[in-house]
Amino acid sequence: MNTYFPEVPERIPYEGAGSDNPLSFKYYDAQAKVGSKTMEQHLKFAVAYWHTFKGTGADPFGGGSLTRAWATATNPMDAAIQTLDANFEFISKLGIRYWCFHDRDIAPEGATVAESRDNLSVVVEKALSYQKATGVKLLWGTANCFSHARYTHGAATNPDPLVFAHAAAQVRAALEATVVLGGTGYVFWGGREGYSSLLNTDMKHEREQIAALLHMAVAYGRSIGFKGTFFIEPKPREPTTHQYDYDAATVLGFLREFDLLDDFALNIEANHATLAGHTFHHELQVASDAGKLGSIDVNRGDPTCGWDTDQFPADLSEAALAMMVVLRQRGLAHGGLNFDAKVRRGSFDSTDLFLAHIGGMDTFARGLVVAHRLLEDKVFAKPMSVRYSGYKRGMGKRILSGAATLTELEAYADRDGEPERISGRQEGLENILNRYILES
Amino acid sequence: MNTYFPEVPERIPYEGAGSDNPLSFKYYDAQAKVGSKTMEQHLKFAVAYWHTFKGTGADPFGGGSLTRAWATATNPMDAAIQTLDANFEFISKLGIRYWCFHDRDIAPEGATVAESRDNLSVVVEKALSYQKATGVKLLWGTANCFSHARYTHGAATNPDPLVFAHAAAQVRAALEATVVLGGTGYVFWGGREGYSSLLNTDMKHEREQIAALLHMAVAYGRSIGFKGTFFIEPKPREPTTHQYDYDAATVLGFLREFDLLDDFALNIEANHATLAGHTFHHELQVASDAGKLGSIDVNRGDPTCGWDTDQFPADLSEAALAMMVVLRQRGLAHGGLNFDAKVRRGSFDSTDLFLAHIGGMDTFARGLVVAHRLLEDKVFAKPMSVRYSGYKRGMGKRILSGAATLTELEAYADRDGEPERISGRQEGLENILNRYILES
Amino acid sequence: MNTYFPEVPERIPYEGAGSDNPLSFKYYDAQAKVGSKTMEQHLKFAVAYWHTFKGTGADPFGGGSLTRAWATATNPMDAAIQTLDANFEFISKLGIRYWCFHDRDIAPEGATVAESRDNLSVVVEKALSYQKATGVKLLWGTANCFSHARYTHGAATNPDPLVFAHAAAQVRAALEATVVLGGTGYVFWGGREGYSSLLNTDMKHEREQIAALLHMAVAYGRSIGFKGTFFIEPKPREPTTHQYDYDAATVLGFLREFDLLDDFALNIEANHATLAGHTFHHELQVASDAGKLGSIDVNRGDPTCGWDTDQFPADLSEAALAMMVVLRQRGLAHGGLNFDAKVRRGSFDSTDLFLAHIGGMDTFARGLVVAHRLLEDKVFAKPMSVRYSGYKRGMGKRILSGAATLTELEAYADRDGEPERISGRQEGLENILNRYILES
Amino acid sequence: MNTYFPEVPERIPYEGAGSDNPLSFKYYDAQAKVGSKTMEQHLKFAVAYWHTFKGTGADPFGGGSLTRAWATATNPMDAAIQTLDANFEFISKLGIRYWCFHDRDIAPEGATVAESRDNLSVVVEKALSYQKATGVKLLWGTANCFSHARYTHGAATNPDPLVFAHAAAQVRAALEATVVLGGTGYVFWGGREGYSSLLNTDMKHEREQIAALLHMAVAYGRSIGFKGTFFIEPKPREPTTHQYDYDAATVLGFLREFDLLDDFALNIEANHATLAGHTFHHELQVASDAGKLGSIDVNRGDPTCGWDTDQFPADLSEAALAMMVVLRQRGLAHGGLNFDAKVRRGSFDSTDLFLAHIGGMDTFARGLVVAHRLLEDKVFAKPMSVRYSGYKRGMGKRILSGAATLTELEAYADRDGEPERISGRQEGLENILNRYILES
Repeated sequence: MNTYFPEVPERIPYEGAGSDNPLSFKYYDAQAKVGSKTMEQHLKFAVAYWHTFKGTGADPFGGGSLTRAWATATNPMDAAIQTLDANFEFISKLGIRYWCFHDRDIAPEGATVAESRDNLSVVVEKALSYQKATGVKLLWGTANCFSHARYTHGAATNPDPLVFAHAAAQVRAALEATVVLGGTGYVFWGGREGYSSLLNTDMKHEREQIAALLHMAVAYGRSIGFKGTFFIEPKPREPTTHQYDYDAATVLGFLREFDLLDDFALNIEANHATLAGHTFHHELQVASDAGKLGSIDVNRGDPTCGWDTDQFPADLSEAALAMMVVLRQRGLAHGGLNFDAKVRRGSFDSTDLFLAHIGGMDTFARGLVVAHRLLEDKVFAKPMSVRYSGYKRGMGKRILSGAATLTELEAYADRDGEPERISGRQEGLENILNRYILES
Repeated sequence: MNTYFPEVPERIPYEGAGSDNPLSFKYYDAQAKVGSKTMEQHLKFAVAYWHTFKGTGADPFGGGSLTRAWATATNPMDAAIQTLDANFEFISKLGIRYWCFHDRDIAPEGATVAESRDNLSVVVEKALSYQKATGVKLLWGTANCFSHARYTHGAATNPDPLVFAHAAAQVRAALEATVVLGGTGYVFWGGREGYSSLLNTDMKHEREQIAALLHMAVAYGRSIGFKGTFFIEPKPREPTTHQYDYDAATVLGFLREFDLLDDFALNIEANHATLAGHTFHHELQVASDAGKLGSIDVNRGDPTCGWDTDQFPADLSEAALAMMVVLRQRGLAHGGLNFDAKVRRGSFDSTDLFLAHIGGMDTFARGLVVAHRLLEDKVFAKPMSVRYSGYKRGMGKRILSGAATLTELEAYADRDGEPERISGRQEGLENILNRYILES
Repeated sequence: MNTYFPEVPERIPYEGAGSDNPLSFKYYDAQAKVGSKTMEQHLKFAVAYWHTFKGTGADPFGGGSLTRAWATATNPMDAAIQTLDANFEFISKLGIRYWCFHDRDIAPEGATVAESRDNLSVVVEKALSYQKATGVKLLWGTANCFSHARYTHGAATNPDPLVFAHAAAQVRAALEATVVLGGTGYVFWGGREGYSSLLNTDMKHEREQIAALLHMAVAYGRSIGFKGTFFIEPKPREPTTHQYDYDAATVLGFLREFDLLDDFALNIEANHATLAGHTFHHELQVASDAGKLGSIDVNRGDPTCGWDTDQFPADLSEAALAMMVVLRQRGLAHGGLNFDAKVRRGSFDSTDLFLAHIGGMDTFARGLVVAHRLLEDKVFAKPMSVRYSGYKRGMGKRILSGAATLTELEAYADRDGEPERISGRQEGLENILNRYILES
Repeated sequence: MNTYFPEVPERIPYEGAGSDNPLSFKYYDAQAKVGSKTMEQHLKFAVAYWHTFKGTGADPFGGGSLTRAWATATNPMDAAIQTLDANFEFISKLGIRYWCFHDRDIAPEGATVAESRDNLSVVVEKALSYQKATGVKLLWGTANCFSHARYTHGAATNPDPLVFAHAAAQVRAALEATVVLGGTGYVFWGGREGYSSLLNTDMKHEREQIAALLHMAVAYGRSIGFKGTFFIEPKPREPTTHQYDYDAATVLGFLREFDLLDDFALNIEANHATLAGHTFHHELQVASDAGKLGSIDVNRGDPTCGWDTDQFPADLSEAALAMMVVLRQRGLAHGGLNFDAKVRRGSFDSTDLFLAHIGGMDTFARGLVVAHRLLEDKVFAKPMSVRYSGYKRGMGKRILSGAATLTELEAYADRDGEPERISGRQEGLENILNRYILES
């Protein structure tokens, strides 16, 4: 396993913040304990197959810029196996324990549904043997129902039931692959589930269509022994003009409306939060408040650009706040932290892939330590508890219990008069957060 | 009733598109029939008291710029009655049939809850007599639980139950006023129901608080004979950093989660759609698809600015699409089209108020005619029906019924092979829309 | 010339707004007079080769979706000639008089600089014969220095002078092609002239590099007889994180700084205005005010999405305002109205290309008529002239002449006291604009 | 001097990162050396009078929320002197050395121009004695020509020369005040210099008007002994729809066009960069590249909101990059770091003002140390120098000198063939930046 990244040692070492070696971890020390668990246990990092091994650097204004040693075979199945080799070499060298894939990332689409399914089976079998050999696990699988031209007007939301059926066939095969490979999650990202124009779209009808697919997927998944969680990944604005799974609140409303809450949770992505006009912290909190934060795509957007830049995470504050949400809900049972991120078009070398992942892992390792200390010291919990204490007793308690009435509340307001104005201390709390980021 | 706008005739006349008189309607002809109803019946326009009579032209960078003849009395209650006079004179001259208000627009806040309530009662009584005299009706009332400093950290979502109680007292009094004045709607716009920072905010707790208030409001409203609809008005980003009632989908999810769907519908505002990154058409359709499009705030945002510019509606295409959604659901039972819009800071004259409303009314009158013709001619309905026809039979029908399985769909896809690619004809449909706008 | 669009008649006819034939013009009547010129003379429409003939429907989330009859030859040069055939058939059937191209659109890149140049020469010769046969002219040419991977870190702004040299070679050949084909404009759009990160970028150095290229291009162009205008096309945010040619004001500043104003003008694109947070009208006016509005890319962005959607123009108000700027400066001497727009990914049929162009042409034909009437009637000019009349005499005149001092102005303010507040009448003017749009 | 902030000690101490005392500096140690200068010498912090002493917490949806002990006098001039007291007490306790003001912040507008000027003189005299007593200095002064209703349609850009004259009178008096108080800068922020609608605006005319004012101001300022720098502060989108001083590049173009470059530099604000769709780093670099980075307004925007939130700076990375630009140009001769920031509407206590400034100062102190080390270690300079080295010799040098031609470059490209693709190493550089932020 030293074919594609010969310039990189067998394992990226932890060398601490004093090291100048770019191919070392400065903060991620897999076996170091944070609270009662190791960093590795807290941080279930996963490598995203599509960006890291299938990404070409292409964008709407130019073709591929990245030349990869594992993309040389002319026969598609040979290339698929080469790429799989690279994946396991890369993961092993990084010391990561999980990977994630779309069906079409790992195996080429065939001329027929059957051929596609067979291609996938062959690669999955090979991947399984790799998993056994390396100890690497599958975090989640998914089906790419957005790249093929047939899905232009939607996959599950396509006006043509035959297109729906093609999507269903892919989901079926991808679910099987996920079960075979022991994935604890299965993700739906509805890349084409949205509209380009309302003039030709029956949004109500299309939302019912996709709910139908999800119900079928649950039924089938459970029937073949999938015990993990189904995830929906919210994203707005791209590639369709309006994407139905706009943000966490929208998806939670959808799951509730179509009675899908039991089997589903959310896979929150940082950059998709940016595109929806929310902070990453917000989207995570919305999902977690609903008991539905299932998995996370860790990356980073650029607020000055309006599309999914999918950069590697580097924001220390964002990582600390994200890990605070995760620690508060005691981890991500069936999910993890998937690097749905790509190196820049001009990061031409395969070494850049390592630097990018190292940076992301260090950022989240630091975030974990900061979050842990913030929680240990009850930095935000203490003032928060005081702040809402009025609802633990008396009239506040009556309000939350549903017993209070407008009439009695009016009397209460009349009697007690103008409330004291109590500062929210936002600036003070922000100061403390920065101090913890720097000093943890 | 010719005190405050002496330069404007008793009634703004309809003179048709050929007229050069700026104080005449070019398209809004109240008694003209569109289908089986008159324009006046279709278009339940309402004047927004706050912008039109209480707006000062102030913005974050400057104080009031508009000098109003009805804002001269030094005693607040005298000023309130003057302003009410102006409201009814204005409405009568425009030939509009409805108005909308916040409690604090029409009556000054007193030193105590009781005094505030009493102030409101006095003005409401006077307003009732005006309504009887003029035939003008109340569309909806609401309570302003966002301007006072006590609501800075939220009204119903305030960490202090005493603040909650003040909000409850306002809602109680405003509901009573609405019932007395015969309003068919009661609106909640949670101006401070959101957060400035998650570091000091328990979002889950706060959402439960506001649900409690809404349940109390329903109970109280029904107990005093309110038979209308409660409306929530979605808005993102302003004035708090994150507003809980972000957009239509978010609010529908909230209503569903807290079992409030039966009594509530949505009041959709054009500019709030813009701020949420949606089109007006989209927000209306989302609400209507859920059977919950209750009322509309017709105005217009500026996509190059990031705040609520609240301009008067002038977009012909937007108005046509909005009216298409309204006509398709056979009108707005308890709601209407409220001009939640303000003249620009530099539109100093009271005449500008008339010009602005005339423009808005003409825009929606034209939109109504266009929408009616589009529906009559089934311009979009016909191709749409063909487009989704696959779901009315065979496998498509099985999919929607919930009977189909992934396995049988895979077989279907395998057998029928690659689907034909059918154009969505978006450009063609856009051409026809423009032709209808120009030629209706 | 009936090979690729057999379903479309030899010439799209003008049938007027009453016609239901989608393949007819409703408003564009080439020989109709508007003022002293025909519509055709006013509206120098051009077809954009890249979108219309080379566009595949691909986006960042999916491969090509559009199957084109002219993209079947396996030999690249054969395919290039087929595509050229399609271009001239399409233009002739539409009744358009101009086309625009990038070097790499019309001829494939060769293995060497020399081979690329030769490929281009062959196609240019063929195009010239087509131009002679059809009367179609070249509006402008340009070099694609952004798609190839070598330009990832910039073309003229690349840190490697050898990359700069490749760009220079392309510009040289494209300039020659433009001269041979009689183009009156030559465009620079710096697709990769910007940065992805300031951490590795010397912005000052890079701006000097691009200025050097532009000076060389002018020298070379003039030396080979190019008498037209060089255009820079402003665009922000895409594909690089920061593009140097951000907007009209930025480019004008750049041209002034590097002494390039004499030979250059601006090519303003509607969608690029949207992305820069400006209106189309604004960007056109900024360029025109500087005497530098040279050419226009007519298309349309989507304010709810953050990238270049490049839709066909359909906004009636935007088109009218754009044509008002054009008419006020008495046309676009060396430029025209180029449809830098693409059909949606799901507009699969080649008929959609016709529908899209027809819609764009009708929109601008209507815009022309509206703008002409607005100017004839001095709708905005009359109030504007009154508004600024204070600067034509007395102290206002002294201010503009540079003669006035702060001291004398203070005395003037002291003596004349508080100025009267004069309404800007914005709402009234917006009403009139809508009336002209509908009634012209 | 212990009247208004009795809860705060005479001087906020530096206690280091280990301290839990919120009223202490963790990173700002005034006399600590960074390179050859002390922190205090590097970081010329200034307090912004308007936000800190005149801010009320009001926003478009609510009145003032902040009760200030220095805003109790009923006589405006008494209140002005109280507020001045608070300013100097606050600054002294913080250990800051500079302040900034608008004319109308420190002295109330009178009934006439003369009265306003006299009010200002009285306060300036008092301020001068305070300055002498405390050693605090004026960084810059400015005139508020945007809050008064008369400036609604512009101050210098107003269509009425009499309004222009009022602005001129204010600028004259504010310039005098600045000279008397020894300010090294004088700022123009054109709050109303822009348009709400192009339908009633002659943008070209208005830009000439403002250029006239700036020329007069230079002439007058120099005549009364002002030896400092005039600053323009770019800002887009607010409060007018389009602000003429949109961003750094736009303002530089304007200064160049109207021959104002010699006397002017830019005052760059972080939040205004955000609103313009740029990073703070970018705007600083653009100004610095032109030799025109004169002063900085340090604050922070919220990318999820579309207006000037003016929060206190807290972003460690942004501060480090900003200080890197400042150190590279060897400081801000006539400018400094002005906290143009306000506490949140719900930060009710005057203690919050201290916490906010402490946080901002600590953030920039840390940024200074990080930037210094980045520069000392040539972290970015070394790879950058290698990256552009091709332009120091041979053909690269010929390009920059203007000697090269397209023809010779084509030959060069032909001969040397395809360039090597060299990674930009963006991810690697981002990793190092984070390490320096955490470890400096």
